[in-house]
Amino acid sequence: MVQFVSVANILKFLARSGVEPHLVGLARYLEEDFSRWEAFEKAPRIPSHSPGGVIELMPTSDGETYSFKYVNGHPGNTRKGLQTVTAFGVLADVTTGYPRFVAEMTVLTAVRTAAVSAMAAKHLARPESRVMAMIGNGAQSEFQALAFKAVNEIEEVRLYDIDPAATDKCARNLAGSGLRIVRCGSAPEAVAGADIVTTVTADKRRSTILTDNMVGAGVHINAIGGDSPGKTELHPDILKRAGIFVELTAQSRVEGEIQQLPQDYPVTELWEVVTGRRPGRTDGAQITLFDSVGFAVEDFSALRYLRDRVRGTQFVEELDLIAEPDDSRDLFGLIDRAGRQSGGVVGRRGAVPAVA
Amino acid sequence: MVQFVSVANILKFLARSGVEPHLVGLARYLEEDFSRWEAFEKAPRIPSHSPGGVIELMPTSDGETYSFKYVNGHPGNTRKGLQTVTAFGVLADVTTGYPRFVAEMTVLTAVRTAAVSAMAAKHLARPESRVMAMIGNGAQSEFQALAFKAVNEIEEVRLYDIDPAATDKCARNLAGSGLRIVRCGSAPEAVAGADIVTTVTADKRRSTILTDNMVGAGVHINAIGGDSPGKTELHPDILKRAGIFVELTAQSRVEGEIQQLPQDYPVTELWEVVTGRRPGRTDGAQITLFDSVGFAVEDFSALRYLRDRVRGTQFVEELDLIAEPDDSRDLFGLIDRAGRQSGGVVGRRGAVPAVA
Repeated sequence: MVQFVSVANILKFLARSGVEPHLVGLARYLEEDFSRWEAFEKAPRIPSHSPGGVIELMPTSDGETYSFKYVNGHPGNTRKGLQTVTAFGVLADVTTGYPRFVAEMTVLTAVRTAAVSAMAAKHLARPESRVMAMIGNGAQSEFQALAFKAVNEIEEVRLYDIDPAATDKCARNLAGSGLRIVRCGSAPEAVAGADIVTTVTADKRRSTILTDNMVGAGVHINAIGGDSPGKTELHPDILKRAGIFVELTAQSRVEGEIQQLPQDYPVTELWEVVTGRRPGRTDGAQITLFDSVGFAVEDFSALRYLRDRVRGTQFVEELDLIAEPDDSRDLFGLIDRAGRQSGGVVGRRGAVPAVA
Repeated sequence: MVQFVSVANILKFLARSGVEPHLVGLARYLEEDFSRWEAFEKAPRIPSHSPGGVIELMPTSDGETYSFKYVNGHPGNTRKGLQTVTAFGVLADVTTGYPRFVAEMTVLTAVRTAAVSAMAAKHLARPESRVMAMIGNGAQSEFQALAFKAVNEIEEVRLYDIDPAATDKCARNLAGSGLRIVRCGSAPEAVAGADIVTTVTADKRRSTILTDNMVGAGVHINAIGGDSPGKTELHPDILKRAGIFVELTAQSRVEGEIQQLPQDYPVTELWEVVTGRRPGRTDGAQITLFDSVGFAVEDFSALRYLRDRVRGTQFVEELDLIAEPDDSRDLFGLIDRAGRQSGGVVGRRGAVPAVA
């Protein structure tokens, strides 16, 4: 049987102790997996594009465990009352090829994206950062805010969204979290005085959430929303002033903010910083940019974390997904037995084909 | 909610009226989808190789519906009492990106592979074919036999396997099917007098199940087992005497029997025959070879068939896989509500982090 974490169960699991300890725990798993980055099979995600969006498969493997995530991105879904992004994921045993763990990942992806951002900022933002601006107050915003609080000791979050209702929702959800929430009337107002700027908007087009004059010395930019071809949030002039950090260079050249830069523009991969091979932030005045697009290894970490945490709890169920015949060569015999149990017949043996 | 067909349910579904009507029905769906082959997004499968086998994702889309299959191939699994191949699949709505249907495909893949073989033989074998040899009597053999009976009017199946226990099992499962079963002591004995030869062995290496002198004029070869790099079943001399038909040329050059031939060796894609663009069998003396490796469009057809047949029946369940917040931007609010229902808390609000 395959272990399964449903939407209802992940919600109960996260609600039980709150999201913050899981953001901290997952950031630790991410750091472990980024530390052994070279052990992973790294292929670009496999996209299927359509006029309304994209469906992607994101596989990876560390040689023992294989994972993949199914994820879509459909910006128009919001207008239909549907999620822009939905996702689920699978862990499998490399030795046997058997799937072992299936989980919803619409919620888990928001948790993992926030944990990745916070883990990156731990290496890239000034340690004394306490104020974060957040441009875009949609489905991921609360997770980002809590991750930076729990992992990076952010105390104040300055919210701005073109839709004030989104800011209302985000402020309401963060009330009581211990964060100081400041609602701002514009992006420049939100960014003014912030140590960290998180951009997490959802439009599928080139937009300019941040312009060059808005970003002062020492700021760390956590750019989440520019994550597919043609979808960017930052003015290219900012990129040129910043130290740029990415997950997987080949993928980010196509999907990240750096799609606006020449193909050979120098960037650093985050795992190089985590392992100490290359420097992260070099001084307090440097502008650092984490140009995040999401990568399969991060979903691997998130699934691994969830699997380890729910094992043996009431949050995991069994899913009857993989046939297990007593004799591996006798798949057909399974049908025969099911037939004898339910009174049907296998082959033709006199049965009326009910569905011919 | 996502519709889900479990192993137990597909077995009951297939047992209810027997496998044959479904082989006929699925062959019809396959013919429909091969007829509109050009409408499909066709990418090679995405493999993750390891010493013990391979895990693959096989996506496709017709612009309305997206599908993918997870499938592994681990020849050593049999020794551990596990399936060589396990699989599951998903259908999603291209417009919204939402997964809609999840099904076990270990059993369904055996049904679809057999239906593809039979559909191909309808176009490639001599219409008067009544005798089939089957070399390899493992997990797929009964499905192949019944498909050729139901779709192609095969009356006699001549069984051979290096392991007599496999032949015993196959003969036992086919007893009462209406097929005349002949157990043979060798591959040449099985092939003698056969109109169709199905090779469906499981070894992950170059083996020579059929040699040139075994194959007479007019025979149709249904080559199933040669389906990955380094894994072939036929002597290359046979290939050179045959008209060769494949699913997707680019994939078959790497995975099929034709990996033994030059990269520009002429082959015909099956869809070209189904649509009448190119001839199938040209005369009664021609040797035809369906060099089958399995392609994503076939899994699309199989999932579509199963979805249509189980809709509204007791064979389908609901799977809580995709989060559906009332407000699409308020994913976080779902946790909050789950917390209020179960007494946990979101954020820190005084909760003890049970899993930190």
